[in-house]
Amino acid sequence: MEITINRESKTPIYLQIKKQIEAMINSGKLPPNFILPAERVLGGRLKINRSTVIKAYMELKAEGLVESRVGSGTVVLAPFSKDGIQEKMYVPPLRWNQLESRRVNKSNEQTINNILSVFEKEKVISFASGVASEDSYDMELLQSIQTRLLEKHREKVLMPTPVDGCSELKHTIRSYLQQNGINAGTKQIMVTSGSQQAVEFLARLLIEPGDVVLVEEPTYIGAIQAFESYDARLIGIPMDEEGIRLDILETCLVKYRPKLIYTQPTFHNPTGMTMSLNRRKELLKLAYYYNIPILEDNPYEELYYEGEKLPSLKSLDNNDYVIYVSSFSKTISFSLRVGYVVAGENIINRFIKFKQITDIQTNTLSQYFVHEFVAHGYLKNHLEKIRNKYRKKRDLMIAQLNKCNVEGMRIFVPGGGYFIWLELPNNIRMNELIKLLGDKGIIVMPGDVFYPKYNIESNFIRLNFSYPKEQDIEDGIEKLLDCIVKCSNSNVKVGHPVETVLNPYL
Amino acid sequence: MEITINRESKTPIYLQIKKQIEAMINSGKLPPNFILPAERVLGGRLKINRSTVIKAYMELKAEGLVESRVGSGTVVLAPFSKDGIQEKMYVPPLRWNQLESRRVNKSNEQTINNILSVFEKEKVISFASGVASEDSYDMELLQSIQTRLLEKHREKVLMPTPVDGCSELKHTIRSYLQQNGINAGTKQIMVTSGSQQAVEFLARLLIEPGDVVLVEEPTYIGAIQAFESYDARLIGIPMDEEGIRLDILETCLVKYRPKLIYTQPTFHNPTGMTMSLNRRKELLKLAYYYNIPILEDNPYEELYYEGEKLPSLKSLDNNDYVIYVSSFSKTISFSLRVGYVVAGENIINRFIKFKQITDIQTNTLSQYFVHEFVAHGYLKNHLEKIRNKYRKKRDLMIAQLNKCNVEGMRIFVPGGGYFIWLELPNNIRMNELIKLLGDKGIIVMPGDVFYPKYNIESNFIRLNFSYPKEQDIEDGIEKLLDCIVKCSNSNVKVGHPVETVLNPYL
Repeated sequence: MEITINRESKTPIYLQIKKQIEAMINSGKLPPNFILPAERVLGGRLKINRSTVIKAYMELKAEGLVESRVGSGTVVLAPFSKDGIQEKMYVPPLRWNQLESRRVNKSNEQTINNILSVFEKEKVISFASGVASEDSYDMELLQSIQTRLLEKHREKVLMPTPVDGCSELKHTIRSYLQQNGINAGTKQIMVTSGSQQAVEFLARLLIEPGDVVLVEEPTYIGAIQAFESYDARLIGIPMDEEGIRLDILETCLVKYRPKLIYTQPTFHNPTGMTMSLNRRKELLKLAYYYNIPILEDNPYEELYYEGEKLPSLKSLDNNDYVIYVSSFSKTISFSLRVGYVVAGENIINRFIKFKQITDIQTNTLSQYFVHEFVAHGYLKNHLEKIRNKYRKKRDLMIAQLNKCNVEGMRIFVPGGGYFIWLELPNNIRMNELIKLLGDKGIIVMPGDVFYPKYNIESNFIRLNFSYPKEQDIEDGIEKLLDCIVKCSNSNVKVGHPVETVLNPYL
Repeated sequence: MEITINRESKTPIYLQIKKQIEAMINSGKLPPNFILPAERVLGGRLKINRSTVIKAYMELKAEGLVESRVGSGTVVLAPFSKDGIQEKMYVPPLRWNQLESRRVNKSNEQTINNILSVFEKEKVISFASGVASEDSYDMELLQSIQTRLLEKHREKVLMPTPVDGCSELKHTIRSYLQQNGINAGTKQIMVTSGSQQAVEFLARLLIEPGDVVLVEEPTYIGAIQAFESYDARLIGIPMDEEGIRLDILETCLVKYRPKLIYTQPTFHNPTGMTMSLNRRKELLKLAYYYNIPILEDNPYEELYYEGEKLPSLKSLDNNDYVIYVSSFSKTISFSLRVGYVVAGENIINRFIKFKQITDIQTNTLSQYFVHEFVAHGYLKNHLEKIRNKYRKKRDLMIAQLNKCNVEGMRIFVPGGGYFIWLELPNNIRMNELIKLLGDKGIIVMPGDVFYPKYNIESNFIRLNFSYPKEQDIEDGIEKLLDCIVKCSNSNVKVGHPVETVLNPYL
């Protein structure tokens, strides 16, 4: 809002101000609800007395052009009230519920948003997230990457990349995959805004209402939601210590002729389980035999805390049955939103079309950040560092959980990844537990969200150990155990270790 | 691949190496297609002679465990060939075409990807994009923002934000909107990965197959594709010099009972036209009367090169009929992918669910980058700078276009934004023109992509003037005119100015 004052004019200054504002309101330049500058501010800006501005505003008020509103200040009123949009007509409210497509899920479930929103709060201990800890970064490292970014790529960090990703990053991903036994050309690789986006794209590509997708049960909540948003029917296949149970899987392959098998073979979320090498081979054979593609979701592979890496399904597959998604969310940063998918060129071309209409490209700044991080060897050191850090936290959490042996409690000890899957006594009152924990400022993921359509009363919870500080693990798990005892009718077994399930293929 | 050498052992070193690699292959640790380190590299790493490694590799080859491949090196063969996944069975290829959902558009149209991919190429003059010029940034500014980012927010730039955006940025957007007469609480604002994402979310929310959306004709390609991907039926409404024609719009409101009106009232893409204030008011009245919501897409508002800003539809709407999307793509950087939507809380809640399953959150680095850019006053100076820059480029392009008056050519001169809409002679052979331009390394957007379902043989092209360098505008437009003459049967009218359409509401 610009006002010019002519000190030579015969028109008093307050009237000059009033007339100029009036003209701006009538021309629409100052729209309704525009808040005029506070009198003191405008006075200061025009180098005149505040009282002169007050006088001008009073004139405007008298003419019904503005009004004072508590908390806002002086506000422009609808300028068209005379010839107006509103006065002549009744405006019926929009009925959004009736406008919405029938396909849209009407629930306002916001599990993931609720978890992420916690990061802006203080004094909450979160075991619910799936992100790195704040102290896994050192500022010197970040500073040096930022400096490299600008020195090397200059303005390019703000310029577009192809829809499927910038070629530098794609080449970096290609070499990285090659080291892990996956040979893919850059046309079979696409950068996505997190691997979640790739899962959603595949659901969009394949699913018609009622199509069946076979998943491990429990499984990753983001995959459940993506498939269910296209009205897929998810069938959960139980797991044993070697991973997804193939006897049941085969029965379901015959019975349902699914569109897809979705699996996380390594450090499965939420259970932390890893599929054995033999199971991997047999799973592929079944997929080949029944002619069903597999979506392999593999974000935790690098986060092994003991033992050796097993080959991914994709690296074992020479027949293009496996679509492979992974990301840098668990190794570098969840919040950069850089993931990738490896698939046949025909599928990548479909995904490029989907990306054109959804977010056009993954943001360039993050793409170059990840490229520098990986291509210049920072990742290798960073991985060693966080493996040590998270191994310690995992062990600390297990030790804490072992401090109080509640009858019926079982700990699933993961060989890597982010999560401990905790079985609670059968008689646990889960709602009561979650509420009680909330009151104490502790959040965990209740197990039922990891089951399709929330169809299970689960007595599990998922505990993340990567994010919370060590002190928070100590305090939080102590309180958690306390609450578990309170919310179940189980006894505390003194002198017995808590039952654990060790995954033998760590 | 880690190999340990025992120099005290009786086993020769080459055999030690061979045995360790063999074990890794048989255990699956080295998957099929894994490329062994080059002999020279492994020799160097183990501090042994290269010939020792060659000997070890030859042993492995002899046993059929690896093979040499030209261009790759020594590659691990399928280790399971004996008990194997493959040899025992015929693996039928997957028929992806049959797996795809019927809803999926089978065309491989990649217009936007093709445009964005050009930025990685040299020696192409692009008038086809919709992005800022590289030289609109100065490195000092970028450096100081980066430094601020890390100093102020530290590790937080890599940590999660709520799904609907980080609260700092939301407050910044809120104040920014308030200055433009839009009063929205932070619960009515959501950060999206570009405004494209918000358009796609609204299509996802509202559209059932066959639902009608009224749009200006021509209109933004990204909106066409988003709506058509949900099988909306787009009806294009012609424009005159005041914007969308309300007489035809009203006929269509009655006839089709559309779900939505989509409009870009200010510096419309591709035509550059701006809707007059009176037309805006009348459009709102029609929406109210027929009870139809409006999606207002307003990314170019700040890029006015003369005259004054007109109030947005959203700022004129007191009845929550207008959903407003905009972004920082055209003012700061397209590639940061930071846009936002203003809508009722019920709609924002639906969008949060959609975002949870698509990309979870907009990347944090970009959110803080934009927050710093806007909240600390960099944007204001930057806008002044780019307005001057782009005004000059626009004028240069118009001057160049005026150098050769082809009969039947008309220039639409925009008062702001990124584009000049150019009408070519009726008899233009468009395919020939685009090919000829391509051969000369010049790309433009053919007009037909801006029409729903490509149902129009358009004799228009869209020329972007923000991105190309001044020299490229001079050279490129000269060549363009040359090609236009060659691809039409029109005469060059000497001594007459080219016909221009000036939008009177600049």
